[in-house]
Amino acid sequence: MKESLGRKMQRKVKVAVDAMGGDHSPKEIVKGAIEAVNEREEVEVFLTGKKELIEKEISLYHYPQEALHVVDAREVITNDEAPVLAIRKKKDSSIVTALNLVKKGDADAFVSAGSTGAVLVGAQLIVGRIRGVERPPLAPLMPTMNGVSLLIDCGANVDARSSHLVQFAKMGSIYMENVVGIKNPRVAIVNVGVEEEKGNMLVKETFPLLKNCNEINFIGSIEAREIPNGAADVIVTEAFVGNVILKLYEGVAAVLIKKIKQSMTATAVSTLGAALVKPQLKKALKDFDLSQYGGAPMLGLNGLVVKSHGSSKSVEIKNSIIQCIAFKEQKVSEKIAAGIVLPETI
Amino acid sequence: MKESLGRKMQRKVKVAVDAMGGDHSPKEIVKGAIEAVNEREEVEVFLTGKKELIEKEISLYHYPQEALHVVDAREVITNDEAPVLAIRKKKDSSIVTALNLVKKGDADAFVSAGSTGAVLVGAQLIVGRIRGVERPPLAPLMPTMNGVSLLIDCGANVDARSSHLVQFAKMGSIYMENVVGIKNPRVAIVNVGVEEEKGNMLVKETFPLLKNCNEINFIGSIEAREIPNGAADVIVTEAFVGNVILKLYEGVAAVLIKKIKQSMTATAVSTLGAALVKPQLKKALKDFDLSQYGGAPMLGLNGLVVKSHGSSKSVEIKNSIIQCIAFKEQKVSEKIAAGIVLPETI
Repeated sequence: MKESLGRKMQRKVKVAVDAMGGDHSPKEIVKGAIEAVNEREEVEVFLTGKKELIEKEISLYHYPQEALHVVDAREVITNDEAPVLAIRKKKDSSIVTALNLVKKGDADAFVSAGSTGAVLVGAQLIVGRIRGVERPPLAPLMPTMNGVSLLIDCGANVDARSSHLVQFAKMGSIYMENVVGIKNPRVAIVNVGVEEEKGNMLVKETFPLLKNCNEINFIGSIEAREIPNGAADVIVTEAFVGNVILKLYEGVAAVLIKKIKQSMTATAVSTLGAALVKPQLKKALKDFDLSQYGGAPMLGLNGLVVKSHGSSKSVEIKNSIIQCIAFKEQKVSEKIAAGIVLPETI
Repeated sequence: MKESLGRKMQRKVKVAVDAMGGDHSPKEIVKGAIEAVNEREEVEVFLTGKKELIEKEISLYHYPQEALHVVDAREVITNDEAPVLAIRKKKDSSIVTALNLVKKGDADAFVSAGSTGAVLVGAQLIVGRIRGVERPPLAPLMPTMNGVSLLIDCGANVDARSSHLVQFAKMGSIYMENVVGIKNPRVAIVNVGVEEEKGNMLVKETFPLLKNCNEINFIGSIEAREIPNGAADVIVTEAFVGNVILKLYEGVAAVLIKKIKQSMTATAVSTLGAALVKPQLKKALKDFDLSQYGGAPMLGLNGLVVKSHGSSKSVEIKNSIIQCIAFKEQKVSEKIAAGIVLPETI
């Protein structure tokens, strides 16, 4: 009996969560962690940060005691600190403490809504890359007309080489198939046209490598216009362009929604109409809200690191924690390690 | 009397218009040309293309005869032809014929809704660059929260160098000030963060050059999220990223509008509400429709070339023709020629 309980407990997915990161920390972070452990019994959360602040929040809720732990960390890394320096100096920060749990194998994954730079740098320095992975990409899910697509890379890897992009395509495919559950995901490379001769040097160099890559379902180039239509499941691009896509997605949607709301209250008649369409409209706009899709996984590391949006509330933190379950249970890291073969580069 | 009439006629802005280009040619192109000459007496239009088709359309309208001319051209360049080859082989095409009118000085400007590639290549090969201009950029106006911004470059100049981007910034400033009428336009470079150390190699190289450029009002980096907010008037970037921005703008807006429309007719109550908000909503969405802003000017040439959207209807063609008036009257080409000093490159 004791042994079988022990085995059951060992199978739990252990997630370290940065309680001090994000605009709504620690309140919403703790709330999200509580929601995750209450919803899924396979998960065990380690909240890192200032113990007294975390415990004060925790005391407001009911939850299974054995599934939630507090790991004290006295320092906090802010958004305006230089990432490399902050990670090196603030050994007792919530981020470094959580990453060390992953490094030592005490946690399988790390979720943070804190400084993107510090999380990305810290993940590489402390958790480390899977052997063979040249650069670990950050890969958020983006809402499309009919579902979600994975945009890979939006991280800090600017000026990427073609061999990096091929690895992104493989890692993205493995993630979409195993975590999101899309069979044989369609992989496309962001380009300025669909013809094979189109593109900048990087795309022209990468295209034939992807075409000859048997492990993925490469469907060719995708123009930015087709991304929101969901024309591919894995959208491969280097980080500068990926960052522009991610942020413009948010920006265009935000401004358009603002304009629509303004227009609807412009006259008495339209204001009445607005009240009638509101419930349906709210639902449609929520579907298109990037923050709904939990955090962006950073792939290719010896453990999962999930970067949640800085503005994350409890629901996004909960979703970020829950995505770690499939990642662990589907052995995504192991599949990435097996799938990464150093590609032929020029 | 005769002499003063002659002088008045000489002051007219002569615009060659490709009657065969675009999804709705020649019908909407001819209609737009008619609307332009009926609205503005300073403009004179030369429609190039198959004479009998154009004349059939023209016969439907009233217009000042001396302001509209037909120049017969028997060939048509399609979107799927390789641009360089098409321009070289189809000497009797509507595009090449119109470009030759500009080259010979018989026209000041050229407007086309046809093949973007052929227009860009033809403009450089036939009309030619202003002395000192390294690469002529294509610079569309994009709708923002409160007006428009100029996105420069969205053309065929992928893999640009920093010296090109500095010229884009100067040309874009001159255009916004003189054609759109924005005093001392704010110039920003597209980047992945606002801190000066952020960016890829090209941005890091270009940033100090722009900062040291006295002729422009450089305000630093702009993140893609802030573009729709109108945070800068001239948005400088290389063509690959510019193309992604332009097309994603269209794509996100189109999908979001589709989702909103679907949501509004999901229930009987929301359908009623939709009818009440429709007039105001339509106006707001029209403000955010890229095609409303006429065509994108290609700058730095010995004459103005305006690329109108392939789906252009008469209103966009009219707007494209009308923007040529300010361009000519404000002597934008001359100002660009005076403003381009070869920048220091590494």
